[in-house]
Amino acid sequence: MFQQLSQTGVPAFLQKRRKVSSDYHRTCRLDTEKPHKVLHVLGTSLEANLNRSAPPSSRFFSVKCTPSVKYSISPPPQETSHLAPIPLNENSVLLISMSYASHFENDSKLSVWYYGENKKVLARALLHLTAVEISLDVDADRDGVVEKNNPNKGSWKWGSNGHGAVLLVNCDSERTYWKKLDSEQESVSRVSDLKDMSVMVLRTRGPSKLPEGYKLTMHISQGDAESVRVFRSRCCDPVKNSLQRFLYKYFVKDYPLVLSSEVLSQEVPYLGGAAEMDFYVEGLRFPDKDFDGLISINLSLLEPVSAGLPETPIFTDKVVLRVAPWIMTPNTLEPVEVFVCSTSDNYQFLKGMRNLVAKSGYKLKICHEYMNRGDRWMQDELEFGYIDSPHQRFPVVLDSPRDGNLQDFPYNELLGPDFGYVTRVAERKDVSSLDSFGNLEVSPPVTVNGKNYPLGRILIGVAFPTATKGRNMTKVVQDFLWAQKVQEPIALFSDWLIVGHIDEFMTFVPAPDRKGFRLLLASPDAGYKLFRGLQSDGHGQAKLFEGVEDEEPVTVDEILNDDSLQAENNYVQSCIDWNRDVLKRELGLEEEDIIDLPILFKLGLEDSDKYRAAAYYPDMVNMIVLGKNLGIPKPFGPKVNGLCALEAEVRSLMEGLGLSCTFIDDFASYHKLLGEVHCGSNVRREPFDFRWWNLEM
Amino acid sequence: MFQQLSQTGVPAFLQKRRKVSSDYHRTCRLDTEKPHKVLHVLGTSLEANLNRSAPPSSRFFSVKCTPSVKYSISPPPQETSHLAPIPLNENSVLLISMSYASHFENDSKLSVWYYGENKKVLARALLHLTAVEISLDVDADRDGVVEKNNPNKGSWKWGSNGHGAVLLVNCDSERTYWKKLDSEQESVSRVSDLKDMSVMVLRTRGPSKLPEGYKLTMHISQGDAESVRVFRSRCCDPVKNSLQRFLYKYFVKDYPLVLSSEVLSQEVPYLGGAAEMDFYVEGLRFPDKDFDGLISINLSLLEPVSAGLPETPIFTDKVVLRVAPWIMTPNTLEPVEVFVCSTSDNYQFLKGMRNLVAKSGYKLKICHEYMNRGDRWMQDELEFGYIDSPHQRFPVVLDSPRDGNLQDFPYNELLGPDFGYVTRVAERKDVSSLDSFGNLEVSPPVTVNGKNYPLGRILIGVAFPTATKGRNMTKVVQDFLWAQKVQEPIALFSDWLIVGHIDEFMTFVPAPDRKGFRLLLASPDAGYKLFRGLQSDGHGQAKLFEGVEDEEPVTVDEILNDDSLQAENNYVQSCIDWNRDVLKRELGLEEEDIIDLPILFKLGLEDSDKYRAAAYYPDMVNMIVLGKNLGIPKPFGPKVNGLCALEAEVRSLMEGLGLSCTFIDDFASYHKLLGEVHCGSNVRREPFDFRWWNLEM
Repeated sequence: MFQQLSQTGVPAFLQKRRKVSSDYHRTCRLDTEKPHKVLHVLGTSLEANLNRSAPPSSRFFSVKCTPSVKYSISPPPQETSHLAPIPLNENSVLLISMSYASHFENDSKLSVWYYGENKKVLARALLHLTAVEISLDVDADRDGVVEKNNPNKGSWKWGSNGHGAVLLVNCDSERTYWKKLDSEQESVSRVSDLKDMSVMVLRTRGPSKLPEGYKLTMHISQGDAESVRVFRSRCCDPVKNSLQRFLYKYFVKDYPLVLSSEVLSQEVPYLGGAAEMDFYVEGLRFPDKDFDGLISINLSLLEPVSAGLPETPIFTDKVVLRVAPWIMTPNTLEPVEVFVCSTSDNYQFLKGMRNLVAKSGYKLKICHEYMNRGDRWMQDELEFGYIDSPHQRFPVVLDSPRDGNLQDFPYNELLGPDFGYVTRVAERKDVSSLDSFGNLEVSPPVTVNGKNYPLGRILIGVAFPTATKGRNMTKVVQDFLWAQKVQEPIALFSDWLIVGHIDEFMTFVPAPDRKGFRLLLASPDAGYKLFRGLQSDGHGQAKLFEGVEDEEPVTVDEILNDDSLQAENNYVQSCIDWNRDVLKRELGLEEEDIIDLPILFKLGLEDSDKYRAAAYYPDMVNMIVLGKNLGIPKPFGPKVNGLCALEAEVRSLMEGLGLSCTFIDDFASYHKLLGEVHCGSNVRREPFDFRWWNLEM
Repeated sequence: MFQQLSQTGVPAFLQKRRKVSSDYHRTCRLDTEKPHKVLHVLGTSLEANLNRSAPPSSRFFSVKCTPSVKYSISPPPQETSHLAPIPLNENSVLLISMSYASHFENDSKLSVWYYGENKKVLARALLHLTAVEISLDVDADRDGVVEKNNPNKGSWKWGSNGHGAVLLVNCDSERTYWKKLDSEQESVSRVSDLKDMSVMVLRTRGPSKLPEGYKLTMHISQGDAESVRVFRSRCCDPVKNSLQRFLYKYFVKDYPLVLSSEVLSQEVPYLGGAAEMDFYVEGLRFPDKDFDGLISINLSLLEPVSAGLPETPIFTDKVVLRVAPWIMTPNTLEPVEVFVCSTSDNYQFLKGMRNLVAKSGYKLKICHEYMNRGDRWMQDELEFGYIDSPHQRFPVVLDSPRDGNLQDFPYNELLGPDFGYVTRVAERKDVSSLDSFGNLEVSPPVTVNGKNYPLGRILIGVAFPTATKGRNMTKVVQDFLWAQKVQEPIALFSDWLIVGHIDEFMTFVPAPDRKGFRLLLASPDAGYKLFRGLQSDGHGQAKLFEGVEDEEPVTVDEILNDDSLQAENNYVQSCIDWNRDVLKRELGLEEEDIIDLPILFKLGLEDSDKYRAAAYYPDMVNMIVLGKNLGIPKPFGPKVNGLCALEAEVRSLMEGLGLSCTFIDDFASYHKLLGEVHCGSNVRREPFDFRWWNLEM
């Protein structure tokens, strides 16, 4: 019945297996009084100190075992006949492994015989061994399939050569009525909800049941429990049972909650034979200042001790997942839907937008007055983004703490199946105009001093860091944006503007050459240059604002003679130049990547803000970018030969890039309210082809 | 007066300078209407778009400047006579630098001349230039000296090839009466306090004063302001003024507060000429779950705009410092002082300790009853550690949230000049016996799978992660320990013990060979092996506890015949083996690095904890390690030929390592109260030679 094996070395296949978890040794006691039953986990080693249990006056030992058992002795004994007793050394250690899972409990055995000086048998320690195979698996190689026992499943590494599974915040709502974020429900709301979760598979192999008292337990730390929930599938019998699996799949009650902030540790069934049990892991919150996004889930095999005592975990397998960040989409990505508000006074604007969007071939979604309640600033209440994983991807709207009359729109109208929602709540007193998301943009992909940002960089506007007072984007939103990590934010200076949004002086348009885009900047200098050119060409009497209702026309000469306007615009140019320097530095841009648009500003258009600026005529940089079609605020500039010189200039700058300009009249309904086309619209875009986990960090 | 320079390229010395801050370009406006005054910071470049300010119909330009000014043109013009006007290109950019600081305001000039088609002069833009040199400096190379303008001062990198300055939490108290942590005082409490702070130097060079309206401002972010305070020295005149410097140095009022959580930005004087101003940076809190330890301090040069408008930061220099972590000291480090409590009943123990400490040549400090109020567990109320920087190092006591009757000792008796104090406050209900610092130890330096831990690894005891109930070390202390990073903690299982401290089953002693230490583990198996040996050698009637007052002696035979004691000890051995496996894995230990000490345990010595264990006879592993001298609880084991067999066994194991054993009678006053020598003592040790910032992380 027993077979003696060579004591030197370990079979090659076992060495390979041991390499993976070579540091997982478990101390095993040898007992010469009575046989000892041991449950062994494949891929680990049992380590028995031979001396510890040896009877007094033991001098030699020998080992016998059944064929499924492999062992080695450390330190390796001198060359002897493989049947002869081996001298017992003070630190003699027996390393025991098994090569395949047991079919029956205790189907393998190993015995150690102890001998005295005269090689007389003194005692025998007998182990009854049962081997099981246990593997908790996730999609650590990020191909959408849960592979078996990936050696890297217990850690997470960025990059195309990286590894580690991905988890989504389950921030959509499977229900369209009586909506609630799926992540706020302690149950699987619909079977369709499972596809927003990461599949985790518990693979086991062994006898039909575990030895008496042993059990499997899944567990998470208290810290991680705030960020994750785990459900399990009951349709977990061996794969052959496909009918049952099919039936189960359509009944939500068959996905019981396993782990949550209330239950950090729970037993999971051992199914026997070769089995796979599916679990579903649901992310509950986005990375933030106090959460780096990493989650560990553990599966332990517990050994019974005795009543009243906690079972001992004798083997633990661990998987690590990272919560997917919220990702913004720059103007260079393909639009999907365009959003605008309909108000009692914006018919002209809506007509222009409708034509532009139709011409461009995208979908226009109009938020009607019952929902917008007169709040037309579609750009400011929300920002579209998305979350991505190898198994699922969907858009997620970030709801601004601005909370104007549009405040219910993101939750009530956008949130839905496969359309997620996230917000950050700030105290009313901490929220300023800089919290509107016209002040939150993202650049196209850039490379800066050799560092790649394939998802671009987020841009926000704040006060100067040196300012002792000033408005800022509220801290909870800034913390959220920085914590997403994959689009490292840049803080610009926007507090010089009355409204204070970066989209008042900058935007990005696609370009066929160079970096694939141009940065457009509002430029009073470019404006003055253009007007001086007009003047020197004899058009000093051409008028701005001609034909605009309730607006006094102004001649080019009048503008150029207004020293105070010039001084104000010199200041504005210095503010924009400050941002220009930061943008060049932080986005790695050259002069050739930047185009200056001729736009003048004016200080103190609002009495309360006499030192802050707003656009003097419609702010053309505040445009909507729909592929190659630009929707630009109609500037009502001075006319030369019947053509607006400002439109002509911008058209000529943009057409060189293959872009088509549509000028939209937003004068009365937006410009006079200190906003323009971009402020009054929003665009949901296609996600990046680049997957965020491939970033080299 | 003007000198024309070659337009191609930049002089070598300037290129070198520009390499350091090559990305620091500032947009500069050229104005053909009136001369423009510019303050330039050495090491940066001014970048002027030549086209932007060109009069209409400009076709050519040329540049002239004074000798201190260097410039280049981008894109480089075609080869022409260096005096001939250069064709004006759409993206022509002028890069301007200066080679040394100005002695007087506007002492340098640069002019751009614009020409029309026929090379007729159309206009001239004139710049009046003043150059200043500004450098905010710290000890970024960690040699104790604040070098000038270290290119790496703005970032922080671990390792012997790393860089970045170090900051201490100013957690000592310069005052010994009316104590208060220095970090809790908004002023420099004594001049001696300055040496606990990191020196930061602002070096400037330029005209005697900055042009009208310009100023220097130091600033920090709101987040960092919770963790740092900056003072400044008034003795800041040029180095020559050493008398004044000497006088100032001794007056605290001459160190005004510059930055704090109340003041995030403050103007600092510009001294003129070649000047250095000293600042003192004080850390306020240790790294923790929500604080990674990194701090940025910025110095900006502000340009005036006009009344009511914030000044524009035109240059910012940044330094980064990392707050030093709290570091524990393992048994292998040289002791400095030994602390014990004197109580009404521990005369015998004190006598033993006094002898041992005197013999070992260290200082014994006794905490008397008025202070300890009967609480004898000196190990449990506090942990000694230290903080280290290139400029200063001192011990810091971590005060446990245990808060027994010894609770005032760390603050009242230990805190003082160059003796720091830190604690973490937990709610009473969250504190358990596992929060005593007999449950907090640190290993000697180890290497684990190629990863070095030159400061060792922290060890704590908790419940099994799979246990649904159980005691743990409180979260605030665990978060603190993990956040220190440099001694990455390991969680052991100690909840199986009534008292629940890891020092009940393990310790480290120095060793001359192998890894420089041995791990000692309590081992019931080793105990039984020894007793069986005694029995088989005919000493079955030898008695434990002989001569111990109020204790019934027990024979070896009785112990070996007690099946329930054997079963309990099998369980205890399995608990210790679980920890042994973790320790081997996480500290990279082999069997030969571990020594088993013969110690038996007993369950349910306290009615309330019938399934938890305590040592059956004095727990020899709970020893005090003083260099090569060990103070070990006297076990009162069975005697063979008048010698205690347990003492003999331990002595023989330790003497092989060159260690000397002193057995101290702690039976009545400690062992019977479920503690031993280690629980009743504490040792302050010398710091590591290894400096923590040299860790490769």
